[in-house]
Amino acid sequence: MDTNAVLDIMWILICGILVFFMQAGFTLVEVGFTRSKNAGNIIMKNLMDFCIGSVAFWAIGYSLMYGESISGFIGTPSLLFDNAKEMHSLFFQTVFAATAATIVSGAIAERTKFTTYLIFSLLMTLVIYPISGSWVWNGGGWLAQMGFTDFAGSTVVHSVGGWASLVAAALVGPRIGKYNTDGTSNAIPGHNIVLGMIGVFILWLGWFGFNPGSQLAISGDNVTAVSGIFITTNLAGVAGALAAMFVTWIIYKKPDVSMTLNGALAGLVGVTAGCAVVSPFGAFIIGLISGTVVVFSIEFIDKKLKVDDPVGAVSVHGVCGALGTLLVGLFATDGGLFYGGGFDKLGVQAIGVFAIGAWAAVASFIILYILKVTMGLRVTKEEEVDGLDIHEHGSNVYND
Amino acid sequence: MDTNAVLDIMWILICGILVFFMQAGFTLVEVGFTRSKNAGNIIMKNLMDFCIGSVAFWAIGYSLMYGESISGFIGTPSLLFDNAKEMHSLFFQTVFAATAATIVSGAIAERTKFTTYLIFSLLMTLVIYPISGSWVWNGGGWLAQMGFTDFAGSTVVHSVGGWASLVAAALVGPRIGKYNTDGTSNAIPGHNIVLGMIGVFILWLGWFGFNPGSQLAISGDNVTAVSGIFITTNLAGVAGALAAMFVTWIIYKKPDVSMTLNGALAGLVGVTAGCAVVSPFGAFIIGLISGTVVVFSIEFIDKKLKVDDPVGAVSVHGVCGALGTLLVGLFATDGGLFYGGGFDKLGVQAIGVFAIGAWAAVASFIILYILKVTMGLRVTKEEEVDGLDIHEHGSNVYND
Amino acid sequence: MDTNAVLDIMWILICGILVFFMQAGFTLVEVGFTRSKNAGNIIMKNLMDFCIGSVAFWAIGYSLMYGESISGFIGTPSLLFDNAKEMHSLFFQTVFAATAATIVSGAIAERTKFTTYLIFSLLMTLVIYPISGSWVWNGGGWLAQMGFTDFAGSTVVHSVGGWASLVAAALVGPRIGKYNTDGTSNAIPGHNIVLGMIGVFILWLGWFGFNPGSQLAISGDNVTAVSGIFITTNLAGVAGALAAMFVTWIIYKKPDVSMTLNGALAGLVGVTAGCAVVSPFGAFIIGLISGTVVVFSIEFIDKKLKVDDPVGAVSVHGVCGALGTLLVGLFATDGGLFYGGGFDKLGVQAIGVFAIGAWAAVASFIILYILKVTMGLRVTKEEEVDGLDIHEHGSNVYND
Repeated sequence: MDTNAVLDIMWILICGILVFFMQAGFTLVEVGFTRSKNAGNIIMKNLMDFCIGSVAFWAIGYSLMYGESISGFIGTPSLLFDNAKEMHSLFFQTVFAATAATIVSGAIAERTKFTTYLIFSLLMTLVIYPISGSWVWNGGGWLAQMGFTDFAGSTVVHSVGGWASLVAAALVGPRIGKYNTDGTSNAIPGHNIVLGMIGVFILWLGWFGFNPGSQLAISGDNVTAVSGIFITTNLAGVAGALAAMFVTWIIYKKPDVSMTLNGALAGLVGVTAGCAVVSPFGAFIIGLISGTVVVFSIEFIDKKLKVDDPVGAVSVHGVCGALGTLLVGLFATDGGLFYGGGFDKLGVQAIGVFAIGAWAAVASFIILYILKVTMGLRVTKEEEVDGLDIHEHGSNVYND
Repeated sequence: MDTNAVLDIMWILICGILVFFMQAGFTLVEVGFTRSKNAGNIIMKNLMDFCIGSVAFWAIGYSLMYGESISGFIGTPSLLFDNAKEMHSLFFQTVFAATAATIVSGAIAERTKFTTYLIFSLLMTLVIYPISGSWVWNGGGWLAQMGFTDFAGSTVVHSVGGWASLVAAALVGPRIGKYNTDGTSNAIPGHNIVLGMIGVFILWLGWFGFNPGSQLAISGDNVTAVSGIFITTNLAGVAGALAAMFVTWIIYKKPDVSMTLNGALAGLVGVTAGCAVVSPFGAFIIGLISGTVVVFSIEFIDKKLKVDDPVGAVSVHGVCGALGTLLVGLFATDGGLFYGGGFDKLGVQAIGVFAIGAWAAVASFIILYILKVTMGLRVTKEEEVDGLDIHEHGSNVYND
Repeated sequence: MDTNAVLDIMWILICGILVFFMQAGFTLVEVGFTRSKNAGNIIMKNLMDFCIGSVAFWAIGYSLMYGESISGFIGTPSLLFDNAKEMHSLFFQTVFAATAATIVSGAIAERTKFTTYLIFSLLMTLVIYPISGSWVWNGGGWLAQMGFTDFAGSTVVHSVGGWASLVAAALVGPRIGKYNTDGTSNAIPGHNIVLGMIGVFILWLGWFGFNPGSQLAISGDNVTAVSGIFITTNLAGVAGALAAMFVTWIIYKKPDVSMTLNGALAGLVGVTAGCAVVSPFGAFIIGLISGTVVVFSIEFIDKKLKVDDPVGAVSVHGVCGALGTLLVGLFATDGGLFYGGGFDKLGVQAIGVFAIGAWAAVASFIILYILKVTMGLRVTKEEEVDGLDIHEHGSNVYND
């Protein structure tokens, strides 16, 4: 193989390693932002969605997404993918698929049945994610053909996970004690925000694989593009954290730790679609917008929609994923509205955001509704009050 | 230096960084799976085995392992290795050597004297590991000459650590309160399984350096081999976790968190010998077998052998390391029994597993027995009950 | 772009990722070595100095440091740096700048006003760090012209952070309860040394980006130099930990966990200036010296200077940064006193250490003094006693 091909594949592998590590980041954010009595269950859900997702994507998901496109809507499936020339790609795409799946676990934490979750997680990486993914990232996909831009997956990965989270959290219902009879909402603080912080730093680290790796090459002039993506990615994360901090400082009178951490994630999610096509300044603004919106979105979903999302996954991944994809229509230096490109780009972005959002929500709803009426989505009241760890797994994670 | 050489060395360095980070993973697994009163002691043991190992391997161990082979049994020693052309190799092999040493600290946690441990750890990286390592990874080693396959060290690294752990845990004896007078065993739960989870994810991350780095090259067609190793490694870890979860679900009625985490490690250890020579499907099966065996092995060592191994190091590294090396004789696509290769390969694998296991066990026994009758292996009863942190190190790791 | 350029830029990006992750390491060390009631505040300070630093360095700091030198004392500023060909360099230098800033947060932890800290942190990356940095790392800088050697920033990064820390900790004053009326000092133990250990391992990991990345190239013979830096860096960290452990074992009668962790950092800081120009043996000795000195320095600053530095930042980064830079004058294989080079090199090193130390201390003093008399540096007594988390941020990080 020639040197440029080696460089490109090596880059994809290194970035894949970083994206793999995001699994630890998601687990820590979810564990930290919830109560100690359910930490073991959250560990199991996150570990298992990676395990199940890895098997499902290898078994069939990868080919459904990247096999030769059938009419633009799905790839040609092949079982137990084993083309030795594409193993780097299978690895990189597997860790992406697992990211989409793991987002849901946070939104339905602390009250969802383990078995039901495993089945939903399997269907997420086997069906939901690869199908809509093929629309955009399979060269023959209908959204790819329209010119829809989602460079690293604000929509393909994050908002698919986010909208599935919204449907799942609504169907499973709020945790006991979350809402009062008068409709007001109680804060249920996470048990260890230090763990949440470690998680956010690991996720940020992983984003330096997620976005720059999505160039899928580094040889020749690709390295300049990749370098630019480091800066847009970082500035958006930075701006998201700054925005969330100042917004909470204004509306709560104090700069809030958890919201600021979520603001960083919101900025990173927001820039993921456009990291390769916006300027550093554009990325900074996208981050500021995402970090601002995430605070109000979390409040809105919690207090107005009354959907209980313990970690803010719907807002961070769903809302900011969709938002960031739309903002490409404004900030893309080639074709964006603010750069004289007119409304065409924005229109295509809106079509993609809506189509994929609808797919993720409807498919999740059908699967989860069937699971609800057959197996049930929720643990018993006693299990929820005592904690899922002791009932579902037979032990606590914290001892002397 | 030409571009291919640069690529290969850069790859080795990057993978070495990942393997270095496994030291943090081991420390976290061991800290999390034991009691809070001994956490500082475990931190010190893990940090020190890396420090002592780095010095010992640089001072003489590296040349004992990789210097020109003397009759196939040992390399030619040279002091304070300083060949500027091989510094990347010294780094990569140092972090491997430290991995073998650090495995033992988990098996003898919570009751072993700090000073004695330091001396054993020194001899591990100075003598035990480099000698058996030279048999396999020194081109002139007698097992290398026989065609023994241990690509990244299921046996050379993990089972050497594992068998040393078994001998050490047996000689030092069980923790106070572990076994009842009627011979039954008490579970002593770890104090923070979240730390254990972080450790397992860090170890998994590090395995993407451990196995793919052992190709020792990435230029040309090496990159295809390396890519395949990512997939075999990941699928085996995944299968190990799945297997351990389902096995515990069946035998304990609940999916066990700690065992599932150990299952992932078991799968990763199991595939380490064969990651470059088995198919993805083969790796998946090796993972399933390893993840199943590790559960029964931990039970057997705990309840039948009555050897107290707080973190399951003997089962994860010793048993699954040996098992994975043997399974190469079945699953190697070139020469394995299941691929029409007959029993030759399996026979050679068995010879290597037995020879290295015997060396590690006997050498460890001699060293530890001498340490036992001279310095003593164990802290006093009072120190053990109060915790090693306060007695051996003068402070607790947890405060307000 | 040609292959060598791609390799070099890719190396810088990969190393930059590792240095970025050091932010998590610093946060964990500081959180772990302080009390639980202030953990959220420390998270916010560390996250914000990275965010503010990233913006400040992009906005103007990078050009102040690396723009065409004006008389050797400052670079030519340009706003919102956007040269697409240097984005990799902006990323790498941004994560370095953030390192200098974040060091200060540890020294003034648990009693400093959040708003004041944010302003100081901004001025640190906007003014203090880039100006003295330009003296050394801008080709036209006056210290660069003199032949001052600070390869990866023992002085440029670490001691700038360290001397700013000393001034800041002195001006803000000791924590309530730290000193008794008779002048004796009370130990205020950190609340979670396990977090500190994770932090140290992450920092050590990051140092494999910090030092080898500062070669700014890996193509051709650079890869040999880079490989050597891995070994010198690692041996110095190792020696620092060993030295600190044995020194505390002798003077406190027990090997101290926190001091040993700081010893590893001291060795890493100490070798940062000379990692590319000393031998492995020289690096080992530099590590031993740094790990020994850091123990006595922490004692001296605590008990004699009576400056309250909760994490030992002044000793680790300031003292060992300066010391390591001076030791280049002794241990540089080309020009060092011990290698027959006479006193010239040592003299130049001393000039650089002194000049940059004076700049960092004076500039920090002026800024902090103005902040003290205008906004105030310190929280109220009530806020400090109750914890900064609840008063400054409205919530605790630890809950059920």
